Amino acid sequence: MAFTVQVPVRFRHCDPAGIVFFPRYFEMINDVVEDWFAETLDLPFEKLVIANGAPTAQIEASFTAPSLHGDVLEFQLTPTKLGRSSVRYDLEAHCGSELRLKASATLVYIEKLGRSLPWPDDVRLRIEAQLPEADKA
Amino acid sequence: MAFTVQVPVRFRHCDPAGIVFFPRYFEMINDVVEDWFAETLDLPFEKLVIANGAPTAQIEASFTAPSLHGDVLEFQLTPTKLGRSSVRYDLEAHCGSELRLKASATLVYIEKLGRSLPWPDDVRLRIEAQLPEADKA
Amino acid sequence: MAFTVQVPVRFRHCDPAGIVFFPRYFEMINDVVEDWFAETLDLPFEKLVIANGAPTAQIEASFTAPSLHGDVLEFQLTPTKLGRSSVRYDLEAHCGSELRLKASATLVYIEKLGRSLPWPDDVRLRIEAQLPEADKA
Amino acid sequence: MAFTVQVPVRFRHCDPAGIVFFPRYFEMINDVVEDWFAETLDLPFEKLVIANGAPTAQIEASFTAPSLHGDVLEFQLTPTKLGRSSVRYDLEAHCGSELRLKASATLVYIEKLGRSLPWPDDVRLRIEAQLPEADKA
Repeated sequence: MAFTVQVPVRFRHCDPAGIVFFPRYFEMINDVVEDWFAETLDLPFEKLVIANGAPTAQIEASFTAPSLHGDVLEFQLTPTKLGRSSVRYDLEAHCGSELRLKASATLVYIEKLGRSLPWPDDVRLRIEAQLPEADKA
Repeated sequence: MAFTVQVPVRFRHCDPAGIVFFPRYFEMINDVVEDWFAETLDLPFEKLVIANGAPTAQIEASFTAPSLHGDVLEFQLTPTKLGRSSVRYDLEAHCGSELRLKASATLVYIEKLGRSLPWPDDVRLRIEAQLPEADKA
Repeated sequence: MAFTVQVPVRFRHCDPAGIVFFPRYFEMINDVVEDWFAETLDLPFEKLVIANGAPTAQIEASFTAPSLHGDVLEFQLTPTKLGRSSVRYDLEAHCGSELRLKASATLVYIEKLGRSLPWPDDVRLRIEAQLPEADKA
Repeated sequence: MAFTVQVPVRFRHCDPAGIVFFPRYFEMINDVVEDWFAETLDLPFEKLVIANGAPTAQIEASFTAPSLHGDVLEFQLTPTKLGRSSVRYDLEAHCGSELRLKASATLVYIEKLGRSLPWPDDVRLRIEAQLPEADKA
């Protein structure tokens, strides 16, 4: 089941065309990932980043319809692949029934500015529990 | 030949890990695209967006090495495919000889919040002149 | 009574020193003002900005203690002075009992990019009802 | 003599009204301060923030006329008061002859997240050399 967060579109997200400026979607996505870590992995980013990090190594996104100031977007995040020190997720954002954004990304768990680290066992178990059936080891 | 811009990494680009926060790369990319329109297509964004728009419909990026505050990134943009009202480009950013970022994206030329528009003839010619040989019609 | 909103400090708000980068406080303040308009003045910004605007004409802020990623800030906004087409407000943000930020600002109600406009009567009444006793006309 | 930097107004700075969103002015101001430290104080922020910091403790700004996408703003920064570990500056931004922004702010030189530090002697001398006559000790 997807992790779900509501994000209202704010004035600060919007460009002179009155629609969400695409880099602001990536700020929203980062907030969603932060919430996902805090609420489902018991690993809040503010603790994670003290000694380690989880930067985005790769991301792709399609913006299928414009979002307007005042819209409320429902983001859904699903982890799809778990590596030794990486995790891949799919993400969609809808406004009502309209798809606005579809994205996939890979995060890597690392030592501060350094080498990749294996996920801690408890985090690994919590991600595994959210994977689609076929991808569970 | 790629369109090239130098972008210094600023304090405001960097996160608590001291490296560029990935949504800030997309702000840099948007600046590069703005410069590319203004300097090579004779269609500055501030004129383009009065009546029309050129939103990013799709983008993918790989962040191959972290960038630090004080680094100077050299962005190179090459258009790779020109449609009736779209253009696809490849982009790389290096610091010295190290690749930091590789991206590809599709822009669509539109009426304000509306339907796609064919590129104006002069803009089409200017993009075509920059395409790799094989993709020129 | 002050209008109150909770704002969590996000990764994206924080700088390489690990504390909120001061321009991000102004983004938070703008969100608080947006909420204040929507929830207490029945004038959501997304409607207001269709034909008019309410830009910030002046602002001053003191940052009395640093805020860290993961902190939850309680913002309190009180309108203090109502002009023909302007409103002045005081704002404070606390984390627990610690004051982090104190600000005052003036907004002006305008025609799009143009001259100042008198506040609509219903908005004027709603702001007046929130003024400290001495400033009510 | 004021320290001067040109800043072009970018698409990313502008809001749905088509003018610079005021928190983006503070991002520009931070860039100007960064340039001032690097170019006149021989203390680039990327070195300063390794062990110490120079957060903004207080700032006030008046936005006297709107700035549009495509405008080029000339920022002028003048230090006005030098304390043991603080510096106050005045700043103005013009587009052509029109004043767009007037600000004053206080920075404090600190140990990482900690107590204020006296300015290093060489930095103190370089700021003093830029003070108006009356404020030189």
